[in-house]
Amino acid sequence: MAMIEELTRRVKQHESEQELRVIIIAAEGPVFSAGHNMRELLPEAGRQQHELVFKKSESLMMSIVESPVPVIAKVDGVAAAAGCQLVAQCDMAVCTDVSKFSTPGANFGIFCSTPGIPIARSVKKMTALRMLFTGLPITAQEAKECGLVSLVCAKEDLDAELLKITSAIIQKSRSVIELGKRFYYKQIRYDIGEAYSLGSTVMVDNINLKDGQEGIKSFVEKRKATWSHTFK
Amino acid sequence: MAMIEELTRRVKQHESEQELRVIIIAAEGPVFSAGHNMRELLPEAGRQQHELVFKKSESLMMSIVESPVPVIAKVDGVAAAAGCQLVAQCDMAVCTDVSKFSTPGANFGIFCSTPGIPIARSVKKMTALRMLFTGLPITAQEAKECGLVSLVCAKEDLDAELLKITSAIIQKSRSVIELGKRFYYKQIRYDIGEAYSLGSTVMVDNINLKDGQEGIKSFVEKRKATWSHTFK
Amino acid sequence: MAMIEELTRRVKQHESEQELRVIIIAAEGPVFSAGHNMRELLPEAGRQQHELVFKKSESLMMSIVESPVPVIAKVDGVAAAAGCQLVAQCDMAVCTDVSKFSTPGANFGIFCSTPGIPIARSVKKMTALRMLFTGLPITAQEAKECGLVSLVCAKEDLDAELLKITSAIIQKSRSVIELGKRFYYKQIRYDIGEAYSLGSTVMVDNINLKDGQEGIKSFVEKRKATWSHTFK
Repeated sequence: MAMIEELTRRVKQHESEQELRVIIIAAEGPVFSAGHNMRELLPEAGRQQHELVFKKSESLMMSIVESPVPVIAKVDGVAAAAGCQLVAQCDMAVCTDVSKFSTPGANFGIFCSTPGIPIARSVKKMTALRMLFTGLPITAQEAKECGLVSLVCAKEDLDAELLKITSAIIQKSRSVIELGKRFYYKQIRYDIGEAYSLGSTVMVDNINLKDGQEGIKSFVEKRKATWSHTFK
Repeated sequence: MAMIEELTRRVKQHESEQELRVIIIAAEGPVFSAGHNMRELLPEAGRQQHELVFKKSESLMMSIVESPVPVIAKVDGVAAAAGCQLVAQCDMAVCTDVSKFSTPGANFGIFCSTPGIPIARSVKKMTALRMLFTGLPITAQEAKECGLVSLVCAKEDLDAELLKITSAIIQKSRSVIELGKRFYYKQIRYDIGEAYSLGSTVMVDNINLKDGQEGIKSFVEKRKATWSHTFK
Repeated sequence: MAMIEELTRRVKQHESEQELRVIIIAAEGPVFSAGHNMRELLPEAGRQQHELVFKKSESLMMSIVESPVPVIAKVDGVAAAAGCQLVAQCDMAVCTDVSKFSTPGANFGIFCSTPGIPIARSVKKMTALRMLFTGLPITAQEAKECGLVSLVCAKEDLDAELLKITSAIIQKSRSVIELGKRFYYKQIRYDIGEAYSLGSTVMVDNINLKDGQEGIKSFVEKRKATWSHTFK
């Protein structure tokens, strides 16, 4: 629980600071995350304590969705149960080719129901249910194929691949990325006609941002844009 | 129609029995299922009869979703039209590398509209619509890539691959698997914030099951769990 | 904007004519479409003009969804921003192996929010957000893997692959294809139980079409069907 709180604090900590442009969630050692500490879920901890664990976990997950900047999982090793949930909940994930992903909760009597929430929203059903019902791990290559990660690479290329992504992000306006992220997670809830009705307005709002205007002008004038990174 | 009724009966037959832990739907011979018997859909059968066929088909499909245990399609050959629907509707599907999948209904004047229901929920749109509009078959490998099946293997490995999945399932608590399956199909209807609100409660309910408590205790005590398989 | 209007006009132009059976959207030269003309989005054009551009773009996209016939993108080259949106919005897409797909709007201060609408509905989240946040292109092979296109082939095979698809479509009844397309886009909004309730009715309606009856009879009588292509 201390780790969940710390992660949530870190995800939110600098969110209003212009200098924060992207968040990478990484781990030291061969385990990205093995999920919850089972000791905190022992019966004697009590229902209130259990509720607190999952409420805090939910807050961490929603802090990723609600973060104004892209959140990337950097995985080099094992991501299991709530650790696999954390990967699936990020906006993007890059992993090494030796990484493994699993949702083995039911082995220990606790079905990975909450990990299934972001997994069902990024992974194909036939793979998602195989993971959830069997608890068996999938390889990095399968994780790419089924939609759990954005990219797989060799360990020695991991930082370079991440750098390509982060460099591309920081060259853009922070406010434009934020506006885009918020709309993405909003529009996926609607049917396509409703999404387009909202979308036209968002595009026009974007153009009328200072950075929208600067972007278009710089493109037409064939010069590099200078971003304000604000919502003015 | 007799086959649909028989399949539905078999899917439901033992659902309240603790010994039932997983259902495999398989076929004899080179055709998994070619779908409805077109003779039952002839005009002279009458609208009431047609309605009955599709109501019964709907019952079969929903019996799979509502089954307390995982339902797996074991495919070694052709799955076409409602036969392809049956595969897509299962929780998991394992197929041999010579299997073929198609939705050719429009060739015979009946668009595979109901097969499209589970296909749209497991297969990527660009492949789903290619299948539905053209009726052309996709290979086993493509079926894996687009999300229609969980695994592809050589014919001689089919039983071994299924055994890996079923062994993993039967080592777990029946009630924990049931709780997990029910929540998976429930939560996918909600947006992510709502799904998490429901999810925390489900996790705590799971921990407070006898098998949830036993699972956590056995993990912490580093011993094998003994499941009750009940909802106590 | 002139191109958007022209495309919309062409998509709708023959929609009530029985002879129209499929629409292919293609381009001359190495660019399928690079998206909006940024000059039309310059600040001095004014908010009303910007709104008009996106309303017209929305009309084009919805005309594809609402077209009674399948709409296929034929891509041999670059599809960027709203050009990538156009591909994702089609019912199917076939591309050559040298094609590239990107949503680089944020590079120019305008996040590809509207392109994200059909992309989110056909492409896996982890790839969709990588495209939208970084603006970096994906290859044809990745586009197939993530769900953005139906097929990838060598340039010399492009017409043959399209011909396979269009031949399969024109052998069927126009009205049956139309009924199937309309139901596909309708049912994906519902949860599975509701979709099946609607589906049974659609199947029975389909059987009671003249072409439904002809299709079944021709199948049972082992002869080629003669379609009326009407909704009688």
